[in-house]
Amino acid sequence: MSYTASVVGASGFAGGELLRLLADHPEFSLVQATSRSKTNRTVGHAHPNLRDLDLRFSTPDDLESVDVLFAATPHGVSMAEIDRFWDSADTVVDLSADFRLPSEALYDEYYDGHSRPELLESAVYGLVELTREELPGADLVATGGCNATATILGLLPLVDAGLVDGTQQPVVDVKVGSSEGGAGGGEASSHPERSGVVRPYAPTGHRHEAEIAAFLGLDVAFSVHAVDMIRGASATWHVFPDEPVSKRDLWGWYRERYEDEPFVDIVAGGGGVYRYPEPKTVAGTNRAEVGFALDPSNGRVVVISAIDNVMKGAAGQAVHAANVALGIEETAGLNFRGLHPVGAP
Amino acid sequence: MSYTASVVGASGFAGGELLRLLADHPEFSLVQATSRSKTNRTVGHAHPNLRDLDLRFSTPDDLESVDVLFAATPHGVSMAEIDRFWDSADTVVDLSADFRLPSEALYDEYYDGHSRPELLESAVYGLVELTREELPGADLVATGGCNATATILGLLPLVDAGLVDGTQQPVVDVKVGSSEGGAGGGEASSHPERSGVVRPYAPTGHRHEAEIAAFLGLDVAFSVHAVDMIRGASATWHVFPDEPVSKRDLWGWYRERYEDEPFVDIVAGGGGVYRYPEPKTVAGTNRAEVGFALDPSNGRVVVISAIDNVMKGAAGQAVHAANVALGIEETAGLNFRGLHPVGAP
Amino acid sequence: MSYTASVVGASGFAGGELLRLLADHPEFSLVQATSRSKTNRTVGHAHPNLRDLDLRFSTPDDLESVDVLFAATPHGVSMAEIDRFWDSADTVVDLSADFRLPSEALYDEYYDGHSRPELLESAVYGLVELTREELPGADLVATGGCNATATILGLLPLVDAGLVDGTQQPVVDVKVGSSEGGAGGGEASSHPERSGVVRPYAPTGHRHEAEIAAFLGLDVAFSVHAVDMIRGASATWHVFPDEPVSKRDLWGWYRERYEDEPFVDIVAGGGGVYRYPEPKTVAGTNRAEVGFALDPSNGRVVVISAIDNVMKGAAGQAVHAANVALGIEETAGLNFRGLHPVGAP
Amino acid sequence: MSYTASVVGASGFAGGELLRLLADHPEFSLVQATSRSKTNRTVGHAHPNLRDLDLRFSTPDDLESVDVLFAATPHGVSMAEIDRFWDSADTVVDLSADFRLPSEALYDEYYDGHSRPELLESAVYGLVELTREELPGADLVATGGCNATATILGLLPLVDAGLVDGTQQPVVDVKVGSSEGGAGGGEASSHPERSGVVRPYAPTGHRHEAEIAAFLGLDVAFSVHAVDMIRGASATWHVFPDEPVSKRDLWGWYRERYEDEPFVDIVAGGGGVYRYPEPKTVAGTNRAEVGFALDPSNGRVVVISAIDNVMKGAAGQAVHAANVALGIEETAGLNFRGLHPVGAP
Repeated sequence: MSYTASVVGASGFAGGELLRLLADHPEFSLVQATSRSKTNRTVGHAHPNLRDLDLRFSTPDDLESVDVLFAATPHGVSMAEIDRFWDSADTVVDLSADFRLPSEALYDEYYDGHSRPELLESAVYGLVELTREELPGADLVATGGCNATATILGLLPLVDAGLVDGTQQPVVDVKVGSSEGGAGGGEASSHPERSGVVRPYAPTGHRHEAEIAAFLGLDVAFSVHAVDMIRGASATWHVFPDEPVSKRDLWGWYRERYEDEPFVDIVAGGGGVYRYPEPKTVAGTNRAEVGFALDPSNGRVVVISAIDNVMKGAAGQAVHAANVALGIEETAGLNFRGLHPVGAP
Repeated sequence: MSYTASVVGASGFAGGELLRLLADHPEFSLVQATSRSKTNRTVGHAHPNLRDLDLRFSTPDDLESVDVLFAATPHGVSMAEIDRFWDSADTVVDLSADFRLPSEALYDEYYDGHSRPELLESAVYGLVELTREELPGADLVATGGCNATATILGLLPLVDAGLVDGTQQPVVDVKVGSSEGGAGGGEASSHPERSGVVRPYAPTGHRHEAEIAAFLGLDVAFSVHAVDMIRGASATWHVFPDEPVSKRDLWGWYRERYEDEPFVDIVAGGGGVYRYPEPKTVAGTNRAEVGFALDPSNGRVVVISAIDNVMKGAAGQAVHAANVALGIEETAGLNFRGLHPVGAP
Repeated sequence: MSYTASVVGASGFAGGELLRLLADHPEFSLVQATSRSKTNRTVGHAHPNLRDLDLRFSTPDDLESVDVLFAATPHGVSMAEIDRFWDSADTVVDLSADFRLPSEALYDEYYDGHSRPELLESAVYGLVELTREELPGADLVATGGCNATATILGLLPLVDAGLVDGTQQPVVDVKVGSSEGGAGGGEASSHPERSGVVRPYAPTGHRHEAEIAAFLGLDVAFSVHAVDMIRGASATWHVFPDEPVSKRDLWGWYRERYEDEPFVDIVAGGGGVYRYPEPKTVAGTNRAEVGFALDPSNGRVVVISAIDNVMKGAAGQAVHAANVALGIEETAGLNFRGLHPVGAP
Repeated sequence: MSYTASVVGASGFAGGELLRLLADHPEFSLVQATSRSKTNRTVGHAHPNLRDLDLRFSTPDDLESVDVLFAATPHGVSMAEIDRFWDSADTVVDLSADFRLPSEALYDEYYDGHSRPELLESAVYGLVELTREELPGADLVATGGCNATATILGLLPLVDAGLVDGTQQPVVDVKVGSSEGGAGGGEASSHPERSGVVRPYAPTGHRHEAEIAAFLGLDVAFSVHAVDMIRGASATWHVFPDEPVSKRDLWGWYRERYEDEPFVDIVAGGGGVYRYPEPKTVAGTNRAEVGFALDPSNGRVVVISAIDNVMKGAAGQAVHAANVALGIEETAGLNFRGLHPVGAP
């Protein structure tokens, strides 16, 4: 084990996945897991899959010294605590929205005033497929939002290819699982009300638009529906190119962009049951699936992407970014392939 | 009971719902239910909720004389059998795609050659909200496809208002349940493979585009995803008006179009858990919910609609159309409100 | 409409179903729906299927005068408020556990002290199949618990036949949906934690044992598991008769007990997909399915029953009992057959 | 990699999990995957989580020489092919029922005639917790049935403690997921019919009774219900001891039996959401959870166990047994902890 690590906010869903990944990571030694609400309880109390870890939640008020601190706390905590985090760790990987956006202006447009705006520019966005070159040695990494991650990965090859630019406003329709709301929650997320839904929970105005604008350079027409799964985010883009494109063009652009990426698979219309990206296939993994279809009637390109929001959209992305930041083998600790068959992810 | 009725193709899902609706309808007397695969079995063998009906499937080769024959057979059967159907009934209500499209050209574009094209023009589309005036006395009614029904009902007020016309190609993303595939089916619809999916089953090329084009006068950018429910179709439109519109405009257009419609409810952003149209709310009913949200950042109008594909998208629509065709009280036999709470619809 | 009715505690799940049933009941006129937490909101705010009812929740502090008051309040409310309920209504139908048990001793064994024990003996248990003769004219009806209802209906014919008596302690394993816990709830009933479970939530010590003991005259070995549905309770009994019994015996006893019951169906091993009682088949209805299988290897009789816990186990049973208490046609307002296909009930 | 391995019948669910486990196993090198129905297709065609394996299904008619052959074929194949299997491999691990039972008499009672009865006695049952001492060097291992595995592991400590013996016939009620039926299947396993069920699919007469009788020395009163999950088997035993037992006794017996078992966890009534064994917690893992509750009213012991039927009940058990048979570290390749949160397993 080369590095020590701690997780602040470890009783939530992303925190629990961080614990799992770090506990089994060949290069990390898990030192501390904090939780204000479950201090002194075993981590297995919150996360039944971790019952055999000999570890209890400690208070976030006493942070042990580690190499990397992962913060899976609600929005607002990290910006308030960042100096204390840095006192205890050289590298901070923050899973909240606090340091995702590159400018204070954009932050203020979508969130409420930032207390440490001077850090926004230097924080590195944790989506390795975008920022692999900037991550090594970073002291503050901010992982992307789950829906933004799915969305960005889907369209990135077309932006790189120049097919889509800021003059268009593509439509993206995202379907998400209930884990995005965390455990507990109120009436809307109780099982009788949440089961079986197709619920337009953010037909307009979702905050992840900000990240997409920042990192793809596009305004998007973004809508999010809640569907009956726990993990998973699936994004469907509708793009109308100015010039006709062929399937061969699409394959070329996606292969060029992703063929060396260890965690991005292109799935576009083969045979069998699973012909396009699906959240089921990537559940529990750090993989993203991206794919596309071409509408011959109108030249439309439909792009589809699927991730596990708790993994590639949160904890897995964070460990991936930390691996790169520290110079560890990029895929270390992230090799789980997922299951087949599998139920609602 | 004023009218006699029979159901051809009664062992399928839409056929079973027709039996249920007709058995409890105040003006219909159910005379015959045919099924080639289940001839001589009780209807309860296929439909456990109908065990107390004293009725067995008979062969479709011997049709009894009735006032109305409902055909819930696969595509292609009705066009082959229409003369025989008319020999046994004055009014035929067909739930297949055979007579939905108004022209042979359009039919040939999306399906394979039609054997009775001369009937296409006179057949009346069964979506009462569109064709209430044409239905009385019709001898051939063709009910709309489930996804087309959800889609058309959502956008109709904006087409009527002139906000959307043939110069645009709005995006519509539809989420559907597994009953659209019928009982049985193969690997893709088996429970282990179908549960929990967000599966892009028709990202492009869905045949219901034809009906939407025919009845809204629009080409659409249409994509269909399978999600984890049994009944239900939810359509989300993304419309970019040339001129800015307000929420008041939208309320005005939707109220004007639907305030007298007994089976269309406008649900647009009230409080509580259910703020927009959802398939759960309409499961088992003949109601459609339609609603909208306005994106202040770009003027986009997001329109959402939800129906039960087996009811408003098939059997309920058929009975509704038959009620109007025969001059029966429009809502007769279709008053079930749906349940709360309810699981996957 | 012959009778006026009100629902106290109308924003909960059972309360909402009472509103639905009464609104469409041929003999009841719905006058008032109270809710302390949602006073002044429309009933559609809580129950989206009731949006078209022109009715708002009023405070339970001001009860209007009606013929029948249905109380769907938490345990303890009715015994505190019963005099006030009787001030406003001649007949009170209570859906809580307050008046279900026939003796104070039994109540104290399973619950905490009763404030109106003198009423326990005169209150009539609302399970019509047990108490049809006692209900007419009753001024206090206490409907059975959902799990007790499923359990009692399953075994009743064998108790009547003398096959099971107090010398045995049969095992009954009950599977229930999440609506038993109501809306809201905490972590355990949140969608991410509650979905897909087989959770032994009361392996021992469930309070419904008391009702079963009281009305079947048996101590039972009772365990309850939560499974992934919203509505529904399915009970499986394992009975070891002293003397061998045949399938013919079983059919005879069940037919004799239930052939005249409008809401009990015997489902025992026919062909097709639905060969035994299932919650899916009865979802939304007031029907109970009961059935049985015989284990030739050991003479064991396996008895299975299924109900919708919100209907036959609560609101439907209450309306059924009120119908009988008032001399209305027993099945009035309770004729919905249920749907096929249907998702998680 | 110390050993070569192949999987016969690799396109099914258990076969796919074998491929996944072997592909990532530190001591196995995966050489061949056969499938008669999918010969020449990539393994990713059947199992989307294995798309990056560079492997195609080959015909089972040409078996390569390996150290271990895993057979995940339907019942009857292995007994017909065992000599050919042995021609290509020193060790055969069979996941079917062909060699599970220790005597021809017992086999004939539950299945149809055996073609190689002379091998029944020497085949070693693959449930390591029962047969750890017999497995090293075995040339034919027969893994246990999924429901039998869950059932045996639950009761084993009480049998060892002498609390349960052949004079009693405990009741066990098992809840299972749809993967037990494999992919495809007919009407009953199609998504619309199978979703949301509590379906008594084998109230009596399940063949796994034979294994339980053989390995626990008990006749059991066994019933199996299908519930809405894909993976998972949960067994609930109801045991009535002759003498009263305490919770301390139970903890003692279970700890004694399982404290050194790497894949069995005792979960019995702690705090939090997950207080007893649940299939969700073990989904995707080779772990079994076992637990118990004591009914003070009648001395009943309720024992609960949960496994993933495709893993601990099939592929995981097979790899575990192979590890022991070959002298590999017992837990090699089986360390996945499972996920939290997770949907229907």
